[in-house]
Order: sequence, then structure tokens, then C-alpha cells
Amino acid sequence: MKAGILCVGTELVTGLIRDTNAYFFSQKLVEKGIFPKFVLFVPDDKQDIKTGFNLLLNDSEVQLMIVSGGLGPTDDDFTKEAIAELLGRELVFDQATWERIRQFYWNLRKTEPPENNKKQALVPRGTTVLTNDLGTAPGLKIDFFGKTIFVVPGVPREAEFFWSVMEREMNISVSSFYRTKILKFCGIGESQLATLMKPFLSRLPSEVRFAFLPNYGETWFYFYTYEADKERREELDRLIEEVSALYGDFLFSSYGDTLEEAIGNILRERKLRLAIAESCTGGLLGDRITNVPGSSEYFERGYVVYSNRAKMEELEVPREVLKDKGAVSAEVAALLAQGARKKSAADIGLGITGIAGPTGATEEKPVGLVYIALADEKRVEVKRYQFGGDRLMNKRFAVQFALSTLFVFLRGKG
Amino acid sequence: MKAGILCVGTELVTGLIRDTNAYFFSQKLVEKGIFPKFVLFVPDDKQDIKTGFNLLLNDSEVQLMIVSGGLGPTDDDFTKEAIAELLGRELVFDQATWERIRQFYWNLRKTEPPENNKKQALVPRGTTVLTNDLGTAPGLKIDFFGKTIFVVPGVPREAEFFWSVMEREMNISVSSFYRTKILKFCGIGESQLATLMKPFLSRLPSEVRFAFLPNYGETWFYFYTYEADKERREELDRLIEEVSALYGDFLFSSYGDTLEEAIGNILRERKLRLAIAESCTGGLLGDRITNVPGSSEYFERGYVVYSNRAKMEELEVPREVLKDKGAVSAEVAALLAQGARKKSAADIGLGITGIAGPTGATEEKPVGLVYIALADEKRVEVKRYQFGGDRLMNKRFAVQFALSTLFVFLRGKG
Repeated sequence: MKAGILCVGTELVTGLIRDTNAYFFSQKLVEKGIFPKFVLFVPDDKQDIKTGFNLLLNDSEVQLMIVSGGLGPTDDDFTKEAIAELLGRELVFDQATWERIRQFYWNLRKTEPPENNKKQALVPRGTTVLTNDLGTAPGLKIDFFGKTIFVVPGVPREAEFFWSVMEREMNISVSSFYRTKILKFCGIGESQLATLMKPFLSRLPSEVRFAFLPNYGETWFYFYTYEADKERREELDRLIEEVSALYGDFLFSSYGDTLEEAIGNILRERKLRLAIAESCTGGLLGDRITNVPGSSEYFERGYVVYSNRAKMEELEVPREVLKDKGAVSAEVAALLAQGARKKSAADIGLGITGIAGPTGATEEKPVGLVYIALADEKRVEVKRYQFGGDRLMNKRFAVQFALSTLFVFLRGKG
Repeated sequence: MKAGILCVGTELVTGLIRDTNAYFFSQKLVEKGIFPKFVLFVPDDKQDIKTGFNLLLNDSEVQLMIVSGGLGPTDDDFTKEAIAELLGRELVFDQATWERIRQFYWNLRKTEPPENNKKQALVPRGTTVLTNDLGTAPGLKIDFFGKTIFVVPGVPREAEFFWSVMEREMNISVSSFYRTKILKFCGIGESQLATLMKPFLSRLPSEVRFAFLPNYGETWFYFYTYEADKERREELDRLIEEVSALYGDFLFSSYGDTLEEAIGNILRERKLRLAIAESCTGGLLGDRITNVPGSSEYFERGYVVYSNRAKMEELEVPREVLKDKGAVSAEVAALLAQGARKKSAADIGLGITGIAGPTGATEEKPVGLVYIALADEKRVEVKRYQFGGDRLMNKRFAVQFALSTLFVFLRGKG
């Protein structure tokens, strides 16, 4: 089964905000074995909405359409008008929807909704109205000559809410697109990995499709197919297990879905506690680690020692070291990792110090220079990296490589 | 002038990776006064590429087309074939491009390129080849019945590189799309703001377009037009200044582009230093604050006091308070803000404690409950929030509202 996604919003096509809905729907569709063939963004313009909608409507393979956005109460919202005109179904006022909007408004603000909200109770004739638990705009389900069309609000959390509604309404049984589980590697580059795997991949039949995907310091690999019968699925599943066994030295996805989850699972299992001290990353390392539910089981605390004074006062970094070696040095990185570990009585300490930029560079120490240190009860190891991004990218890469270092260490220890 | 963007890649339509190229091009086009009318993602499939390409080609308003992706050396790359077939121009081998690819390869790896790279030297007849400084795939410029078509690689840094090439090649003189500067508000919801502004907006001529955009706890507002002559621009600029003056109580964009920049500018100007203590957000607040270049001027340090022991040891939160009131309480939030401020000798302390979820809730304290506290030399204020998102969303909202609290406080103080 193939699908098409149409997102309506001038703010999307003009890059004012970054799409989240299409990205979300794509992932959810694929999980259900539905292939999102086209993803389109169009502005808040009736004719442009029609053009985009028509592309999906006229594609014979697209059986499922998801349209999001343009359902608000203001004069800028044209989605329902565009669809009604294209499908030749007039807009009618839905009293039940209006009562729900009134109730929703009353619960929230103890007043009647403004008159312009009445527009949100208009639906194309022959539509199934889907109740919105989080806002005033209803969702719509329209069956049209064998295609199922869902129309949902563009507000991200409302769009996500409607995914569960769509799931219930769809009753999907067949699926032609199949992607194996994704192997995620850290600590090894795409080209290195591809070279390593070449002998294996070159022996595969040509109809086996695969992809390498570099993803901000991680390398992802998977097999996929557009014709997923049972046999083909099983073949690809066998192959991905084989790759996992053959090239698993830097594979973290066998431990968890994200690198921080993989690390968390190992820490939890071995009853190890982690403390961190970060300077240039400002808290991003702690943020990544605590994105994992239950991370309080193994994450003890973090020190964001941004100033030199903080480094001295919180983690006993000697003034002379800061003076002689500088705050961005292997020595300070080691002291941060050791200090965080010692002060918190954790098992492992992780430290980051670097120059995120754009300012702060010196002749010997360019923007993007980062030291990452890992300390346990026996020793401390320090690595030096030179990243080439802007401030946010350097922070992101520093955290990614700190997590990679921790994963490879934990894996080697196990 | 209007444009269309077509991104080719199965990894995009399936949500395996999140688009960055279309988002980047959209923003750049708008900066040049070009309106990106359609943005499309299609998979690595020749027919689907043709369908998407045709939509842009057949739209009479689209004068500029940017196609990115599908230019690699492997069998999965169809973009040039699809375009050549559609435009009726055969693919020819470009010797100069091949020599450049060989040279590029040699510089990088001291070997000859593999045979399959020859595919990258094929270009549709009548094409201007654009040199790629960062990779093997060349860019293409095709003039076709009044439309200008650019075809560039999908690797994000190469796509960005080609933007500067396109800029040179375009020679754009007119611009029809215009967006005023964006007013960004915090601490006030979209509907509240819209109600507040209604008397003003209802008096405007109907051809003045405007948009409200709720954006994760911020509300954005701007005017825009598709017919930007000088007069119209000036009129919209005047209007946005008027809105800014009339409804500026919660306006932070007059201080900086992002909320953390606005806060940073005020802190810097008033020579105030900030320290933070965060629990459920795990470092995300520090991360946001340190996304601003030069934040070390006012950001002293952060405490990620994830465990109860960390709260007691680092910030002297009494064991009895944790026991009687719980770690997620107004009392603990206040102690975190005051403790961070006192221990670091900063001027302002900001504290967050809450339940990000999905676990950790009790009968009285549901997931999404967050306390935010702000302390200065005179007093401490605590606010209670109940968010309704998942773990990541709750972290994000908690940080957003902590920053809003800080901004409104600083502004009131000024």
C-alpha cells in the first residue's frame, strides 16, 4: 500500500518553521508497512492546495492520503474549501461538531467561541468527522473512489493525536514496503564501514536493496524492498542478522534504539552509575542522556562548569592547570571526568571541554577543538577531536563522540 | 518570482532521516524574495521523480526549480535519467567532468575512482555543468522554455555549497514575495494575542496578509505579501513597527532573534550573571542558554542535580524537604534556584524540577508536572505548570517556560 502526504502552510514552504508532521507521518506509515510515495508542502493558497492534492489524487498507486494544516478559523485557512471544490462536494455545517467546539471552548476558557470558529464546523458532504481531543478543528475522513483521505490539523501535537485515530480507522492488512531493522554504528565512518562490508555485499543477489546512511557521527545500515512477500522479508531479516554478526564491533543498536539508550541499557544491567562534567556543550550531554526514560537509575548528576571559576570551585581543577594548559586541554578534560566521578561517587566520569565557536579560538586552539575524557576507578583516557561545524554543530558532534567513547568503552569492558 | 523544490530520496519520504535541504533552500529563496511555492519529496524511483518534476515543470508560475538528490554513482540514483527522459535530452558523457572526478578522487584517496563513478559524468545534452568543490557529483543548470532548473547533490553540505553557486548563476533582480521581520512573543498564547490584536487587525485593508504561528510556547507574528512593490513593503514595515509598539509587553524579538539570545542580550547589558539548577530537563536548559555565542559572559554554571543525593550534596536541599514535599515540589524548585544562585555567587538563579515521564508519576503528581523557580537577591518566585506531552516534549516545554519566566522577569526589572 502506498500513501501520499500533503502539508498545507505558507510557514512550511517558506522555511519559517521546520516540518514535523510529514516526518512523523512518514515514520508511522512505514512502521505499518505503508510506503509514503510523495510528500508535498504547499502554501495557504487554494489553487496551490488543489494542485498538490490533485497530484496525490491522480496517482493510481496512492491509496491513502494524509492532508494536514489549513483547518484554522481564520481567513488564511483554505484546505476544506479546496478539497470540497475538487471532489465536487459542498461544505455543510455540522451541528454536532459545532456543539463539541462550544464545549471545548467552554472547558478551556469559560466563554462561547468567537463567531469565526463556526467555519471549523463546516465539512464536505459525505465526510466522517473525527473528534479532536486537543483542539477545535475536527479531523475528516473521506472515501473517494477507492482512496482514503484523512484531513487533520497542522498543529503538531494535534496531528500526532490524529495518527492514533487514523490507525483505528484504517484497518490495514497488506503491506508491500519493508525495511529491516536498522543497524546503527558509532565510532566508524560510512566509507570505512562500506569498505569493510564490500566483500559481503558484492556477493548478494542484485535485487537485494540496501542503504548506508551517515547520520551526524553515526552510520546506519539497512536492507529494504518494495515487494515484501513473506520469503523476501525473511531473506532480508536473515541478511541483516548476518551483517550484525559479521561487522558488529561498533554496532550499538543491538543494545538500544538510540546511542543513549544503548549506553543506558548497559549501565543499568551492570549497575554502573555515571556522572558528567561538560563545559562547551553546556548541558547537551546531560540532555541526551536524560532523554531515556528511567535514566535516573544510572545517571547520578552533571556539572555544567562553564566558567573557569566553576571548574575550580565545583571540580577542584587547579588554577595553575587552567593557566598553564588552558581550559581547553587534555589535562582539564581528564580533571573534569575524574572530578565528576569522584565528587559524586559515581563509577564512571565523562568530561568535555572545547571551543564551540565562533569566538574563543586562539592561534594554537581553533574553533571546533574538543577534548573528551572518560574516567573509571582505574584510569582516565582522553581523546582530541577537531570538528569543523558551526557552534551548534560542534556542540552536537562533541556530545555524539563523547557518547561513542562511552559506548565503545562499556562494550570493551563487558 | 516563484520557485519549486524537489528532493529525491527514499530515506526522506520514509522518514528515516529528516530533511534539511528543502528547509535550507526555502529560507535562502525567501531571503532573495523568491517564493517557494511547492516543496516535494519523492523516493529513488524514476517514475516518481518524473511525477514530481512534472508538477513543477507544468506550473506556469514556477520559474525556478531546484532538484536535489539522486546523483550518486550507485544503481539507486535516477535523477538525471528521469530529467533527461522528461525533457527529451539524451545523456552524454562529459569528459571534463570525468577528469575533475578523477582529480577529486586522487586528491582524497590517491587512487583512480571506481568504474561506477563514470555515471556521475553523464549530463543531459545542453546542460551547464556546475563544479562541485566538495564531492564527485556535479551540479547541473538547465534552461528549459523560460524556466531555470538547478540539479544538485543531496548530501546536505554539498547542497548548501551549491546554493552559493546558484546565487551567482541566477542574477535575480526582482522579488515579489516579502515577509516583514517576525515578532516573537513569549508568556502569552496565540489566541490571547490574537484577541488582544483584533481591534488593530480588523482595521487593516483586506489585502494586508498576516500570520500567527504558535511555536512550542512562543507565538510568532508577521505580515507578508506576494506582490511586494516598494510601497507595499514600506507599508508592511510600518505596520509591524506599530504592532511591536502596541503589543510589545511579551515581545522578545526586539532583544534578539531567539529567546535565549534576547535573554543573553539583557543579561550582558545589565552585567548580570546567571546560574541554573535543573533536574527533569537534564541539561537542556543549559544547552539552550549556551547555544548563544558569547554566553560565557553571563552564564556562570549549571547543576544537573538528577538524583536526590545530588540535590542534597550540591545545593543543600534538606533531606526532610525531599521526604516531606517530594523532589517535585514548589519548595524544592525554590531551593534549587536559590542554591544555584548562592553557591555560584551569581545574580540570578533559575531552577526546574518536574516529572518528564513516562514513569515517575504518583497519584498527586502526574507526568508533566513541572515547577520553575527564579531567585534574585530579594526574593524567589515559583510557578507550577502541567504539560501534556511525552518525555521529550515535557523537557522542551519546561525549558521554554523557564526561559519565558526569566525573560518576563528581566524585562519587568528593566
